[in-house]
Amino acid sequence: MDLHQIDQFAKGIIVEAGRRIRESFTYDMVVETKSDANDLVTNIDRETETFFIEKIKQFNSQHKVLGEEGMGEEIDSLEGPVWIIDPIDGTMNFVKQHRHFMISIGFFIDGVGKLGYIFDVMREDLFSAIEGEGAWYNDTPLRKLKPITIEEAVVGINASWVIPNKKVNHEKIIELVRKVRGTRSYGSAAMEIAFVVSGKLDAYISMRLSPWDIAGGTIIAKEVGAIATNLSGSDSNLLLNDTFIIANPSIHQLILDNYIEVK
Amino acid sequence: MDLHQIDQFAKGIIVEAGRRIRESFTYDMVVETKSDANDLVTNIDRETETFFIEKIKQFNSQHKVLGEEGMGEEIDSLEGPVWIIDPIDGTMNFVKQHRHFMISIGFFIDGVGKLGYIFDVMREDLFSAIEGEGAWYNDTPLRKLKPITIEEAVVGINASWVIPNKKVNHEKIIELVRKVRGTRSYGSAAMEIAFVVSGKLDAYISMRLSPWDIAGGTIIAKEVGAIATNLSGSDSNLLLNDTFIIANPSIHQLILDNYIEVK
Repeated sequence: MDLHQIDQFAKGIIVEAGRRIRESFTYDMVVETKSDANDLVTNIDRETETFFIEKIKQFNSQHKVLGEEGMGEEIDSLEGPVWIIDPIDGTMNFVKQHRHFMISIGFFIDGVGKLGYIFDVMREDLFSAIEGEGAWYNDTPLRKLKPITIEEAVVGINASWVIPNKKVNHEKIIELVRKVRGTRSYGSAAMEIAFVVSGKLDAYISMRLSPWDIAGGTIIAKEVGAIATNLSGSDSNLLLNDTFIIANPSIHQLILDNYIEVK
Repeated sequence: MDLHQIDQFAKGIIVEAGRRIRESFTYDMVVETKSDANDLVTNIDRETETFFIEKIKQFNSQHKVLGEEGMGEEIDSLEGPVWIIDPIDGTMNFVKQHRHFMISIGFFIDGVGKLGYIFDVMREDLFSAIEGEGAWYNDTPLRKLKPITIEEAVVGINASWVIPNKKVNHEKIIELVRKVRGTRSYGSAAMEIAFVVSGKLDAYISMRLSPWDIAGGTIIAKEVGAIATNLSGSDSNLLLNDTFIIANPSIHQLILDNYIEVK
């Protein structure tokens, strides 16, 4: 399989999907409620996923597609070539802010990440990677992350996980918030992952993410030396929801050892 | 005093300062430590403040200037025409992310806000207002904020205020985090204020801000109906550090009454 050919194809449909989404702001958006009020989904979200699936099936009908909106197949294994797609990561930002939402795509062969993409739709900024060949911010190669101390770190973490919750001991998270230089929260996992791989954040932690939130990002992470795991330190499960941390390699284990106590 | 003339002058120097800052990224930055590691200051920060002061004094030598970097006068009263300037709000973002930092400027006469500006330097996006005449996002008028419920609100608040702290009862803040639709934190007060006045956030709360963090924003706030006060509900003191909330008018008092307990 020619990865460079697939990479060119992927970039083409991502840029095209981004253009369609930006144009869609001229139309009214139909916003529906998915599982809860925090999980807005729009017609544009679903249309974009359908667009990706149609293009991929035209490209190669053997490729499977796992997508957030469930317009693709039911997938219970990562055997063969599999695309994992989030057409719009950060739906609330999309609806309310018209910015800070990402297209996130990972391409896997037999469960091994080959190509990763995070596209900031409004900025038209593409973070991408090819396994073993490196990562790029648009046409500029991304450098390996430089070592930092925990005291210098700026960490992406939402306030939901700093208060008492069912997933982790929040007292340890409070210690982390006190230790680091600062925290941020942008409301898009893919955006925060893109910030970590490009050194704009030093870690991003979430207690509940889905495969499509992280699939593209974990492939980019490897190429810059960022470490992405679940909060037990294992590889994230790409078929189920899981906890998640991506961090500069000099603080990944340190955060897990000292500040994360999974319930 | 012709406010429109001063407005044109202010926009001109803001755009020019932004251009100088963007160009400065081609040079190495000297980063020093101010009062603590959270408070980075760069040579560009100071150069930009000096640029503003020189331009303002050329424009009218009677105007006083209060600036974050202390390159202006010592000011103990807001009598007469006073500019309150933050050359770079979000210094850590500036250094680490090369985005998400703002120029924030307010122009006051005898303590009354007349002209307000928040400029996103990298996006070249200007939020501005003229007292009594309205507010703009670049050339587009900003609309009055529409009513929302607390459950629909997205609130800017940093994790530092969600954990035990000296300023407010954090247990009440935890209730707020649980009540609202979501929280965000961008690391620039002026950016979060700009998001509130344009409906991208519904409130922004901080327990410690300086006059230059809020001066420009509070003037824009009035024109769109956003309410900006300290956490006791009084007008913010523009000569001292103070607590701060800016919110959609339908939730400002509700947040103060139910979720804020100043220590």
